[in-house]
Amino acid sequence: MTYAAGRHFLQIPGPTNVPERILRAIDRATIDHRGPEFGALGLEVLAGLRAVFKCQTPVVIYPASGTGAWEAALVNTLNADDRVLMAETGQFATLWKNMAQKLGLQPEFIPGDWRHGADPAAIEARLSEDKARAIKAVCVVHNETSTGVTSRIAEVRKAIDRAAHPALFMVDTISSLASMDYRHDEWGVDVTIGGSQKGLMLPAGLSFNAISDKARTASKQAKLPKSYWSWEEMIAANKTGYFPYTPGTNLLYGLREALQMLLHEEGLDNVFRRHMRHAEATRQAVRVWGLEIQCLNPAEYSNSLTAVQMPAGHSEVAFRKVVLERFDMSLGSGLGKVADKVFRIGHLGDFNDLTLLGTLAGVEMGLELAGVPHRKGGVAAAMASITSAPVTSSVSPVRSAA
Amino acid sequence: MTYAAGRHFLQIPGPTNVPERILRAIDRATIDHRGPEFGALGLEVLAGLRAVFKCQTPVVIYPASGTGAWEAALVNTLNADDRVLMAETGQFATLWKNMAQKLGLQPEFIPGDWRHGADPAAIEARLSEDKARAIKAVCVVHNETSTGVTSRIAEVRKAIDRAAHPALFMVDTISSLASMDYRHDEWGVDVTIGGSQKGLMLPAGLSFNAISDKARTASKQAKLPKSYWSWEEMIAANKTGYFPYTPGTNLLYGLREALQMLLHEEGLDNVFRRHMRHAEATRQAVRVWGLEIQCLNPAEYSNSLTAVQMPAGHSEVAFRKVVLERFDMSLGSGLGKVADKVFRIGHLGDFNDLTLLGTLAGVEMGLELAGVPHRKGGVAAAMASITSAPVTSSVSPVRSAA
Amino acid sequence: MTYAAGRHFLQIPGPTNVPERILRAIDRATIDHRGPEFGALGLEVLAGLRAVFKCQTPVVIYPASGTGAWEAALVNTLNADDRVLMAETGQFATLWKNMAQKLGLQPEFIPGDWRHGADPAAIEARLSEDKARAIKAVCVVHNETSTGVTSRIAEVRKAIDRAAHPALFMVDTISSLASMDYRHDEWGVDVTIGGSQKGLMLPAGLSFNAISDKARTASKQAKLPKSYWSWEEMIAANKTGYFPYTPGTNLLYGLREALQMLLHEEGLDNVFRRHMRHAEATRQAVRVWGLEIQCLNPAEYSNSLTAVQMPAGHSEVAFRKVVLERFDMSLGSGLGKVADKVFRIGHLGDFNDLTLLGTLAGVEMGLELAGVPHRKGGVAAAMASITSAPVTSSVSPVRSAA
Amino acid sequence: MTYAAGRHFLQIPGPTNVPERILRAIDRATIDHRGPEFGALGLEVLAGLRAVFKCQTPVVIYPASGTGAWEAALVNTLNADDRVLMAETGQFATLWKNMAQKLGLQPEFIPGDWRHGADPAAIEARLSEDKARAIKAVCVVHNETSTGVTSRIAEVRKAIDRAAHPALFMVDTISSLASMDYRHDEWGVDVTIGGSQKGLMLPAGLSFNAISDKARTASKQAKLPKSYWSWEEMIAANKTGYFPYTPGTNLLYGLREALQMLLHEEGLDNVFRRHMRHAEATRQAVRVWGLEIQCLNPAEYSNSLTAVQMPAGHSEVAFRKVVLERFDMSLGSGLGKVADKVFRIGHLGDFNDLTLLGTLAGVEMGLELAGVPHRKGGVAAAMASITSAPVTSSVSPVRSAA
Repeated sequence: MTYAAGRHFLQIPGPTNVPERILRAIDRATIDHRGPEFGALGLEVLAGLRAVFKCQTPVVIYPASGTGAWEAALVNTLNADDRVLMAETGQFATLWKNMAQKLGLQPEFIPGDWRHGADPAAIEARLSEDKARAIKAVCVVHNETSTGVTSRIAEVRKAIDRAAHPALFMVDTISSLASMDYRHDEWGVDVTIGGSQKGLMLPAGLSFNAISDKARTASKQAKLPKSYWSWEEMIAANKTGYFPYTPGTNLLYGLREALQMLLHEEGLDNVFRRHMRHAEATRQAVRVWGLEIQCLNPAEYSNSLTAVQMPAGHSEVAFRKVVLERFDMSLGSGLGKVADKVFRIGHLGDFNDLTLLGTLAGVEMGLELAGVPHRKGGVAAAMASITSAPVTSSVSPVRSAA
Repeated sequence: MTYAAGRHFLQIPGPTNVPERILRAIDRATIDHRGPEFGALGLEVLAGLRAVFKCQTPVVIYPASGTGAWEAALVNTLNADDRVLMAETGQFATLWKNMAQKLGLQPEFIPGDWRHGADPAAIEARLSEDKARAIKAVCVVHNETSTGVTSRIAEVRKAIDRAAHPALFMVDTISSLASMDYRHDEWGVDVTIGGSQKGLMLPAGLSFNAISDKARTASKQAKLPKSYWSWEEMIAANKTGYFPYTPGTNLLYGLREALQMLLHEEGLDNVFRRHMRHAEATRQAVRVWGLEIQCLNPAEYSNSLTAVQMPAGHSEVAFRKVVLERFDMSLGSGLGKVADKVFRIGHLGDFNDLTLLGTLAGVEMGLELAGVPHRKGGVAAAMASITSAPVTSSVSPVRSAA
Repeated sequence: MTYAAGRHFLQIPGPTNVPERILRAIDRATIDHRGPEFGALGLEVLAGLRAVFKCQTPVVIYPASGTGAWEAALVNTLNADDRVLMAETGQFATLWKNMAQKLGLQPEFIPGDWRHGADPAAIEARLSEDKARAIKAVCVVHNETSTGVTSRIAEVRKAIDRAAHPALFMVDTISSLASMDYRHDEWGVDVTIGGSQKGLMLPAGLSFNAISDKARTASKQAKLPKSYWSWEEMIAANKTGYFPYTPGTNLLYGLREALQMLLHEEGLDNVFRRHMRHAEATRQAVRVWGLEIQCLNPAEYSNSLTAVQMPAGHSEVAFRKVVLERFDMSLGSGLGKVADKVFRIGHLGDFNDLTLLGTLAGVEMGLELAGVPHRKGGVAAAMASITSAPVTSSVSPVRSAA
Repeated sequence: MTYAAGRHFLQIPGPTNVPERILRAIDRATIDHRGPEFGALGLEVLAGLRAVFKCQTPVVIYPASGTGAWEAALVNTLNADDRVLMAETGQFATLWKNMAQKLGLQPEFIPGDWRHGADPAAIEARLSEDKARAIKAVCVVHNETSTGVTSRIAEVRKAIDRAAHPALFMVDTISSLASMDYRHDEWGVDVTIGGSQKGLMLPAGLSFNAISDKARTASKQAKLPKSYWSWEEMIAANKTGYFPYTPGTNLLYGLREALQMLLHEEGLDNVFRRHMRHAEATRQAVRVWGLEIQCLNPAEYSNSLTAVQMPAGHSEVAFRKVVLERFDMSLGSGLGKVADKVFRIGHLGDFNDLTLLGTLAGVEMGLELAGVPHRKGGVAAAMASITSAPVTSSVSPVRSAA
């Protein structure tokens, strides 16, 4: 039997469920990427992305996964053996650090317990020590997808400023962009990295760099070899809406639709409030179950996913297998240091109250069927949380038809 | 704002949620309905439909709503002023009776309380009285969509047989076909009426007559005017897979996909068990809420929908408005005699455990927000029902890709 | 091998090629046909259809093939044994006449040679003879799909008026609507029949009646049995955008998109001019090939299809088989009296200059490969016709993205 | 007006027209890229790609444009300042050479006239001179998309062998793969670069490296910084069908469908013969027009595109603008040294005889309308070419339905 009735619950913390409007927009004949229609498309999506990043300076789009945009940020701004200060917030911070090493940089990794965000004080301390200004960049993951912990970017900015350190500030927003508030310009970030497959509700395949003037200036001196990722050809071609090499036209159709929905229909502030409501309800459920939220500091809770610790002696792999086979729901696995110790509930992207409650019901029933000790009532608590939440965005009775 | 995040919960008792595989199959270039490819398509779907109806004799397909197939059943078999025995099981039985009147027939309507199925004993009694054999057909709705009550078709057949009455037996399976067990041949039905938009998981636009030899013989003498609905041209053309007038080719693509999923992937018996599991969980929830199920006889519970009575003094219209606006879920309204008194939860078609629980959560939260007296815990009861249900069909880890 | 590279050329005179925008609009989740979003959809498409028919009075939509709308026109307005005057313009006029007989009417069929449209003089003469006003309706096919001959509707209207005859005037526009100019109100038509699968560029499955006040008045007295096709319930429900039984919601999504394209983007007048350009180029090609156009009167040429006579002794069936197998193009067959004698080239719907030339190339090459005597140069003549045609609608460089 | 009737003719030499089956395959819910269903998908497409490249060793897939796969080939195998021998066949060879420079390599560019492929004798001569074996790689573009000239890869291989030179052999097949015969293993290529958006009939966004054992051995010593493009993590993860970072899942769905069509339905040999037939017909047309084919050596004609020289004093930009605005067809522009001097007709990918003839008709009519001197009769010549071509693959009457 290959047909599983009903819709799969894709509740990993990304790639997220792609709305039918976006899939349908992608499902359209490709056009000439050098013709006039394409230029109009390019200008439209580039402008929309700047609104999402809250940035006046250029955003560039790569036909690549988010991992590529990490690489782009580094190779455009740095030189071989440059020292880079990074914060160990979890698996993705670790992978980014490993990438820096592979690219010939010298990352310094401020250790972390995977239950807290980057520590502004530690960053300030390290930068203050760096009298020689050997550190060329500070790299932080805004929302650590492996732990459900956010880092307080505005505070990290202040820490850098207090140290009066000239390092570039680079932030990964792959799993927070368009789900949680983020302000590239206001927070003084130099390079922000984003991807298409999370809050932007697209399939994977596009990734982004938002680039400050300072970063761009740095890029003129940066000598790491680069071609595909090079900002300058990209920014030059983008002025008229085109790209220096073949763009991912069909995903750009989807991006246009996503930007229309996020910016012009629901509105970013409503999007953020929706994610907050779902995250809060999820945490209420976890607490009732008697399980522990991986994130220890409520000020650092992620609104796009919740990582949950398994009780000692219980395997998240086994638990998720039950949930997948019995309820056709994919949950996020434990990664790296927390492999088989935490599972992750994605509640980001194109998501609503009832799908959240179906998701939490699947977790609660899965805990029971997998024999994981827990208290019942998590779903009920989440329902109470939802019904008592302020209605921030009423659902329109007339859903748009694409 | 026109974008409502997440997927709309379409929990009316049909049209039902159409799986993406079926929508994608419909979304394909039209072909020549007189060319060789079409003939192969026609033969395939006609054979598949016979398997769904469990019938060896012809099934015909109309490019029309289910209402058209009602009309087809009557005009192909009957003559002006023919007496027809019908059972008042609810709104759809009433509409069918009204149609019979408009078409110049003489329906006799055995009264009902809209909380029970057709009464085999009453039918037997009436037929036994009919010494003149004036009654030419007995018409019963298998699953009354307005009430969530089924009629026991096999027992009605036995009642007709006990009366040794030659009337044709016609059954509407519009909201039960491919959701609950149904056996055209074994149960001795002469004309079965079906539609595409419920258990078959298609959009509305196709409807069906499964036709016994006896019905077909009757049709040779039937004089009601007919052309579009005429069986003979249809059956003749169908022999090679074609149709006497332009067929709904794109919906036939979808039908082929649906038949593949129902017959060859999940399997009809698993489909029926799945609907049973969801219906039982729903009823457990309703009982905990302290609301009354419209259907009084457990032997007549519908597995495709559950109609629920509102507490006295509370409006289902107001309740459903809250659910739609707050949770983006459409529930079924009260129709006809039970307007504003019952609401209906559709749990048929392409549906799974977690979507059911999201649905029930939406009902439970809606009851609270609409100020309808109820006890909490319905969702929890449904979860208990689901986890304790036998696993009748394990979900394959490899979902088919169309 | 089942994959034929490239796009099939569906050049039958309907169903026509459905544009991707319309297929994608249909490929969307079904909504509650009793909910608020549906009402808005219904009102929008009903208003748009009135603009297409050029009619102020109601247009009704059936979830049915065009054949159903023929039946609706007759059963809503007439009584058993009513005399109906029809003109034998070809196969579809014949089928409509046969339908009238099956429905218990008394059609009178003015004979025709299948190479001319309905003769206004003959109609006037017959009506003038009918002193008893026994004739209740005059029925004409605007564009006879089997022959590529149009009937001059405005002149037929004048003929009826000259005879001062009160008969209703009914016109089939199934293969002309939205391809050639048509004016329900101005031409004094009482019932116009249309379908979705030709000029409206949708799959088959919707059909229409545009209804004059006079027709509606007649319908109050009409006694032919009817239910599915009944105008009154339809018109009553349509006032708020709803339907008396389950509508074909997904096709209505497509209809909305089609109306947007035809009325608000290309514009009906441009649509008509485009069809005229393609028809004229096709006729130029046929003349160069030395084949005979089935339509004898240039004033009656169809702009949506061209029927072409095969040279004596040559089979159109064999010719079309070569074209299908070698070039993956479907052409229209000869129907009824002209079976195996004419083939038909559809050039209507979503169609442009280059696709026309590909089509004509397929015909010219097919003639050669099938050994049908002809002169070469038809495609070249069509190219000359296209390049010399006035540019009535420039193609926008920015094609809309749905 | 934004709606241009009919289908746009996208006759640039890629991205090519994506078949509806492939677009529909892409238009499907994303799945967990770490779940069991994904692994099966990954293994299937990786195996299929090896069949397309005709290679037993690994092929890796990047979520990136073809330009990225160029970069991957270089950074995985080479070290800073390595000498690389490249052949100036046209614009894409030039861009690849520029990339090598940006990445810190030392390309040597054998000059060319943009009308011939890479010269095996010149390569042999240069390699023979290189007694120090300073040249680490020979890089050739199989099908130069800017000129419609192919390079004879098997002969280049022999040239390298005759020189007994150990340099790696790298070949760009972006615009030839799955359109013209290519044999990675048999021809002794070390790295073959491919992309999704040409013969594979997908949107842009995936690109490939087929990797010989020799290349892989070289990669162990290669020190150019790399992370995203690194083969080793990719090959390791691919063993079970997974990827080291988020893959472009939806494009992989499309790739699976494309591989099914190319390998299992039409068959690669039929695909190649079809492209040959269309290319030959195109060249016949160009000759009749009296225009000059950019490629001078018939042994090096491209079967996926034809580049045509404009008569002196005529602008291809102006000509293509007429064709786009009047006939809604995109042709390829002149690039680099031949800007405004040649235009390019793409005839690759999902393409058939009648679409080719529509394409050529658009060119011939465009020449006339743009006032470009030419002789008429090109389309007629192409028709003669097509009808006289051997039928290598008959079109099945039953087209598959996805």
